[in-house]
Amino acid sequence: MKKYNFYSGPAILPQEVFEQASKAVIEYDHIGLSLIEISHRSKEFTQIVDETQQRIKEITGLGDAYKVLFLQGGATQQFCMIPYNLLGESDTASYMDVGAWSKKAIKEARLFGQVHVACSSSDESYTYMPTAFDVPESSRYLHITTNETIQGTQMKSIPNVGCNLIADMSSDIFSRQLNWNQFDMIYAGAQKNLGPSGVTLVIVKESILGKLTRNIPTILDYRVHIKDNSLHNTPSTFGIYVMLLTLRWLQKEGGLAVMEQRNKEKAQLLYDAIDRSPLFTGVARKDSRSDMNVTWTINKPELEDAFNTLAKDNGCIGIKGHRSVGGFRASIYNAMPRAGVELLINLIDDFSKKHG
Amino acid sequence: MKKYNFYSGPAILPQEVFEQASKAVIEYDHIGLSLIEISHRSKEFTQIVDETQQRIKEITGLGDAYKVLFLQGGATQQFCMIPYNLLGESDTASYMDVGAWSKKAIKEARLFGQVHVACSSSDESYTYMPTAFDVPESSRYLHITTNETIQGTQMKSIPNVGCNLIADMSSDIFSRQLNWNQFDMIYAGAQKNLGPSGVTLVIVKESILGKLTRNIPTILDYRVHIKDNSLHNTPSTFGIYVMLLTLRWLQKEGGLAVMEQRNKEKAQLLYDAIDRSPLFTGVARKDSRSDMNVTWTINKPELEDAFNTLAKDNGCIGIKGHRSVGGFRASIYNAMPRAGVELLINLIDDFSKKHG
Repeated sequence: MKKYNFYSGPAILPQEVFEQASKAVIEYDHIGLSLIEISHRSKEFTQIVDETQQRIKEITGLGDAYKVLFLQGGATQQFCMIPYNLLGESDTASYMDVGAWSKKAIKEARLFGQVHVACSSSDESYTYMPTAFDVPESSRYLHITTNETIQGTQMKSIPNVGCNLIADMSSDIFSRQLNWNQFDMIYAGAQKNLGPSGVTLVIVKESILGKLTRNIPTILDYRVHIKDNSLHNTPSTFGIYVMLLTLRWLQKEGGLAVMEQRNKEKAQLLYDAIDRSPLFTGVARKDSRSDMNVTWTINKPELEDAFNTLAKDNGCIGIKGHRSVGGFRASIYNAMPRAGVELLINLIDDFSKKHG
Repeated sequence: MKKYNFYSGPAILPQEVFEQASKAVIEYDHIGLSLIEISHRSKEFTQIVDETQQRIKEITGLGDAYKVLFLQGGATQQFCMIPYNLLGESDTASYMDVGAWSKKAIKEARLFGQVHVACSSSDESYTYMPTAFDVPESSRYLHITTNETIQGTQMKSIPNVGCNLIADMSSDIFSRQLNWNQFDMIYAGAQKNLGPSGVTLVIVKESILGKLTRNIPTILDYRVHIKDNSLHNTPSTFGIYVMLLTLRWLQKEGGLAVMEQRNKEKAQLLYDAIDRSPLFTGVARKDSRSDMNVTWTINKPELEDAFNTLAKDNGCIGIKGHRSVGGFRASIYNAMPRAGVELLINLIDDFSKKHG
């Protein structure tokens, strides 16, 4: 039976990416060696780095002012690296407070400087994305979380602010068109729309760095990674290669415009099914609903396990909601085919008819 | 033509590991999903973590006092994490100074506290491993580098010291039998004897942690990773799985005793060929020669390119020496078959006969 992977991350990737990656683990490009055994300084691998950076520049349209890095440690490590590099002890940075991930980012920033909360949706259990931002003029930067995987919320517009704008796009990067030049830094753990876990994409405008006098440990210093073009230490070579395969697929399919259209359609179909069901209720406020992570609960909690089992038995894997929200979550990233969403919708409709 | 990979890392792994890893990228264990798309919190993946930890405990014989972690960022990140967790501002730690890698470790430690150099081989261009250690009683720990990949040196005995002993074993872990209980912490980037790049093995005695008052960023705090069993944030799921496959192979082959015997034999054969050649000269002092990274230079530098080309044309890949040493380096980790070493020896003998 065909299975559809609705896990929030590590997450579904295009089938052809799995096939190409699998082949490369045996032998990369007819060189007689596996991709995962070749040196990160070999000409084969440095070409992979170059092409991946090139494609990211093409996809975003960003110019030479921005550097593309492939780091390790996921968004969690960025929560530490960002203030380490950009927030002096007596400086203030502004942060959105829109759920578990932004709270983690705030906690780390407080180790390094002052944090001002620019907006919060804690008053409604993080079920919406605020649109009004209070950003003091003195802010070193505003940190935003464009998509919250747990509650299933997504920013529908990006604020114009008078300071540097840093975006955690871990769970919706390259899912839609954005004005990429509006950002001074963008980062994302790869394991949703970009590749496997173990590699973190960082796109940073070089001019925002180097303003502090603080000693930064080498591995945490963006300037070191820029200087050595992500090869200061050994990166996740497999992770970067799978990211390249995923980006090739994304561009071949038509790029961000096509991704955005497909993602909006898939999400709308699924939200419509939830909204027409007397049994299920969406978690996120309608104006903040994520096109990536669709969250909903069941009005008869005694039936929750039964729906999870039904989904699993029909090949919809990983729809159990995050433990802090309960209910269900379907992560429908770029690589989730419409057929997977339609299968899940049929289950929602049938189950609602039977138990609603 | 069969090719042998002599790169220093990422490096050769057993052929069956490539095959099993390749298969899992298509579908893991008949679950209908790729290994790289399943959640790190899925029951399938947590079983992989558990089995990998269990095998490391079996291989080392270490008990419950030690915790096994799978982190990111390689040894370079450990250079920062170790003093962050273990070296207070007014504390002193002792470090071996035996080459580029230990120098990097020392540089990071100096950001956090005082460093005392316990021994150094800088007087002979790092071509030997010192055996006398000057470790002040007040040292928080002694940091050693058991194998230096660049010059090709390896510690033949591990010192008994009165403080905590921390070992960077990146390039010779699980290549030989050791008294593992002698160490308080062992770490290694996986990309030599353990797996692909992107995962770092850390084995730490829990009781040495938590002695400082310093605020440690979450991602850099060993206690956080212990508490969450390496799943605080998303680890490199592929990297950990390939490490598990490699450890299964290691144990199936007979464990550390067999690895040690094979490694000693392979290295001895290769050093013998270098020593009998009038054309080539070993880099490391004989009492410090590494069984993992064999380094040598050519007495007629004008022939260096010719030997590199000959090796490559005959399927010996990656034998160019590190840029700081020049000459040649053959990394002959656990997974390098004796046949690969014998092929290289034939080339050395033939080339020496022709040009010596």
